[in-house]
Amino acid sequence: MDPAAWRARLGAARVATLATLDGQGRPHLVPVCFACLEDDRIVSVVDDKPKRTPALRRLDHVRAHPDVCLLAHHYEEDWSALWWVRVDGTATVRPRADAGMLAALAAKYAPYAAQPPAGPAIVITPTRWRGWSADG
Amino acid sequence: MDPAAWRARLGAARVATLATLDGQGRPHLVPVCFACLEDDRIVSVVDDKPKRTPALRRLDHVRAHPDVCLLAHHYEEDWSALWWVRVDGTATVRPRADAGMLAALAAKYAPYAAQPPAGPAIVITPTRWRGWSADG
Repeated sequence: MDPAAWRARLGAARVATLATLDGQGRPHLVPVCFACLEDDRIVSVVDDKPKRTPALRRLDHVRAHPDVCLLAHHYEEDWSALWWVRVDGTATVRPRADAGMLAALAAKYAPYAAQPPAGPAIVITPTRWRGWSADG
Repeated sequence: MDPAAWRARLGAARVATLATLDGQGRPHLVPVCFACLEDDRIVSVVDDKPKRTPALRRLDHVRAHPDVCLLAHHYEEDWSALWWVRVDGTATVRPRADAGMLAALAAKYAPYAAQPPAGPAIVITPTRWRGWSADG
């Protein structure tokens, strides 16, 4: 599959897992809703879903260690249908998503269209894309 | 939800995302099939699914940096139904899964019951469990 196809597949994925590094350099994971932007960056917003843990931990991680990894994948019991897309990149934190980011998120998720997320945004600039599918 | 309930939820999840650290200390992600063992360890095997990338990269990562993170989550468009379970832990690599590990994997996945995976195993000893659900 060519890179554009992997990007399209990631863009259509409803959820992905974001890996950051914690204060001790250990990997830390959280599932995220996200949108792919036209300039190839990827945006995720800390939204109003209730957070039990400190909501901004992932933001502190990104500020301290900008290296992140994002993975979207498909699972089903027929393992010949499995696939994943992985992005390595560097991330920055913005106090708010800009208008273009909010539009991309609203176009993808009904709750974001109903109420634009007001929290800080993590913006990933990909440095490497990898994709795999069981059927080649 | 109590810790036992989170463990049960993870144990029933069909797939999880494993984060390791690469040679430069950056996070690296791969989806894994896995089984929870009776002693609370978690096992995943490098199986025969075709690998495009060097299949043993995650094993090199674990040998160099035993800190790992494993996340299973549930997504649906009704965000009030979201949940995730996350395990921080340390991992070791074994040349093969032992009989108990293979039995746990075979009990969970039909392809593993049909053909026990012969590859190396990553065995995670959890150091911390966290769980979150949108409905509290």
